[in-house]
Amino acid sequence: MTARVTEPPARVTASRMAGLTDELGQVGALPGGGLARFTYDPAWARAADLVARRMGQAGLAVRRDQVGNVIGRVEGSGHGTGTVLTGSHLDTVESGGRYDGALGVLAGLAAVELLIGHCGQPVRPIEVVALCEEEGSRFHANFLGSRAMLGTLDGTELDTMTDADGVSAAQAMIEVGLDPGLATRARRTDVDTFVELHIEQGATLHRDGVQIGVVEAITGLAWLEVTVDGRADHAGTTPMDSRRDAMQGAAAMTTALTELAVRQGPVLTCGRWDVRPGGANIVPSRVVFSVDVRHPDHAVLRALVDEVAVTCRRLAGARGLRVDVREAKYAPPAPMDDRLRDVLAESATACGASWRALPSLAGHDSQMWAPAVPTAMVFVPSVDGRSHCPEEFTPAEDCARGATVLATALHHLAYP
Amino acid sequence: MTARVTEPPARVTASRMAGLTDELGQVGALPGGGLARFTYDPAWARAADLVARRMGQAGLAVRRDQVGNVIGRVEGSGHGTGTVLTGSHLDTVESGGRYDGALGVLAGLAAVELLIGHCGQPVRPIEVVALCEEEGSRFHANFLGSRAMLGTLDGTELDTMTDADGVSAAQAMIEVGLDPGLATRARRTDVDTFVELHIEQGATLHRDGVQIGVVEAITGLAWLEVTVDGRADHAGTTPMDSRRDAMQGAAAMTTALTELAVRQGPVLTCGRWDVRPGGANIVPSRVVFSVDVRHPDHAVLRALVDEVAVTCRRLAGARGLRVDVREAKYAPPAPMDDRLRDVLAESATACGASWRALPSLAGHDSQMWAPAVPTAMVFVPSVDGRSHCPEEFTPAEDCARGATVLATALHHLAYP
Repeated sequence: MTARVTEPPARVTASRMAGLTDELGQVGALPGGGLARFTYDPAWARAADLVARRMGQAGLAVRRDQVGNVIGRVEGSGHGTGTVLTGSHLDTVESGGRYDGALGVLAGLAAVELLIGHCGQPVRPIEVVALCEEEGSRFHANFLGSRAMLGTLDGTELDTMTDADGVSAAQAMIEVGLDPGLATRARRTDVDTFVELHIEQGATLHRDGVQIGVVEAITGLAWLEVTVDGRADHAGTTPMDSRRDAMQGAAAMTTALTELAVRQGPVLTCGRWDVRPGGANIVPSRVVFSVDVRHPDHAVLRALVDEVAVTCRRLAGARGLRVDVREAKYAPPAPMDDRLRDVLAESATACGASWRALPSLAGHDSQMWAPAVPTAMVFVPSVDGRSHCPEEFTPAEDCARGATVLATALHHLAYP
Repeated sequence: MTARVTEPPARVTASRMAGLTDELGQVGALPGGGLARFTYDPAWARAADLVARRMGQAGLAVRRDQVGNVIGRVEGSGHGTGTVLTGSHLDTVESGGRYDGALGVLAGLAAVELLIGHCGQPVRPIEVVALCEEEGSRFHANFLGSRAMLGTLDGTELDTMTDADGVSAAQAMIEVGLDPGLATRARRTDVDTFVELHIEQGATLHRDGVQIGVVEAITGLAWLEVTVDGRADHAGTTPMDSRRDAMQGAAAMTTALTELAVRQGPVLTCGRWDVRPGGANIVPSRVVFSVDVRHPDHAVLRALVDEVAVTCRRLAGARGLRVDVREAKYAPPAPMDDRLRDVLAESATACGASWRALPSLAGHDSQMWAPAVPTAMVFVPSVDGRSHCPEEFTPAEDCARGATVLATALHHLAYP
């Protein structure tokens, strides 16, 4: 495996990618634009059926695992070698786009189809996977498909996690013909490589005209919940200098935290707000707001989290307010495998594509795989960086170039 | 009526006021503390019955008008002179206190009882009124009791305004034995003076040890709704310098507006907030927040409203956001009658009470009466300025002093 990456045996065409993305992009399309495919709902099930049919037509042996991941496999001729896995997720956010997740599935399918057609059977087995859940839009399932394959799924959580209508994930599985009691059997121990193609979702590749991104690390993410307590007072009769207005403190905090991110980067967001009691004529007594802070370096991220708390406490103290900063979630940065990153970079070069190393500031299935098996990601540009919205778009030429780079890397890995 | 105000014929005692406020304060008491008497509910009806009984025992001729105002009258011996009216409202906010509204009714009752006992029949008729509605806690009825008496009630609104359970005001009236079809007949044309005693609800009298407040004007109030529009973006992949975060703009606005009020006074509050889409990992695209701004001077209040809009537009423009500032409500300041203010001030002096002229920064029934008939208000201290809460408190000695000042003023007005 120290051999240089060679030129691709052929190229995935733009028309092939356009056909695939247009077709899948109609499954779950909403009347007002955008898509909605939530895990185990009817649109999701139709998408899984479609992908399974197309995998079969591409020459792959297709099965569904115990949690509904759709897996297409081409057997390897060698012995004792692990499976090379590629793919991404099928589910979308509410009113999402056609490319987030879906493109990684379809590019994997097109890449393996190309390899089978031009190079025959690989030495190592290759699988293309359409993972059942990544976005958490229906259940807060937190990478259910990847975790089931990695063996980190706790079967009992299928009963406890419910959607907005109170339907448990286990009930929803039964409705699409899955047996939740068997979910933990989706575990795989034979996978030793995971490569995921995805749209960047940011604007940097598109803005700078770079064709391929090779991910260095998936950013770490901390979700903090800040609770600011003051005192409710009459909006008329309470002089300004006698107030302990929780919202004034929270406004100062979000301004200061944003300035912190502008200075120390890369991103911090205060997106969820709850202001109580919420009357127009009552001074706010309690504000709860979320802080989403991300950084690809673990030590820097921890320091940022600490500085958020220090900043909030300082500003609360100056205003006679109390503040509590709770860490609701912490996902450490997931560095990608160095050797696989080299393979992807050399594959881009072998395909004549310009490329750049970059961090991923969004979360991906790859961050679940990275601690367990060598994992890497290839990005294609997102026009204007728009994502999680109907405007999400990557031209078919860019999709095809990404699929060809992926095919080149898979060829290097599975046809040694 | 150019004669000086003379000393009171006698004084209302603290024990009389304690008896009255303790008794009425148990009607509608909640298990956890505080009161709830909502217009036309059972607790409100019991309170109206109690007040009617006590008015009768005080020597007043009692009737209920067509909207449920309880009116106790002592006839005047003169001819062709208008009625001197005193009182306040019986309803409370949710979990309110014993003094807001109720004290004005009970002080009026105790004052007229004192005058009848010591001075006999007045020359001008005096009425004590327990107004049915001021707080808007059940229906957004907006001073229903006062408006009915003033002839500014539109009978059809009783059908259209409903409580949280969908019960119309008209239905609620029928349940307590009132005929909503007769509501507009509550109109009075004989009242030519209205004097209202109320707790300050602010802290200034209590803090400075001043016993009586003579209201100069009831503050004007503007309610503005500010809508800030930006763009929803992915909290991870959107660089800080590419965002149009509506909440960052709104935070800067509320900070600047608060500073404006601190400089130009007296009070401004941003109490109601709605941040969309509200996901922790999505940059806020739209924020709607309320601005409650008050000032006793009409021109200054209009200038403040204009400056709110200018400030919001400036801060929105600097951040690539759009902003809309809508005026949802404007209640002009209600200046109190100069001659009646003098009578109240002289009455305080005649009673040996310290007094101060001050604006009312809360709304009161008096603001409805002021444009139509000479109107004035006397304030007693609120301990720590707490109001609209179970902690609302005014010592019985302060209640009695206020009732005595009221009796002195009524004596001057009705026994010339």
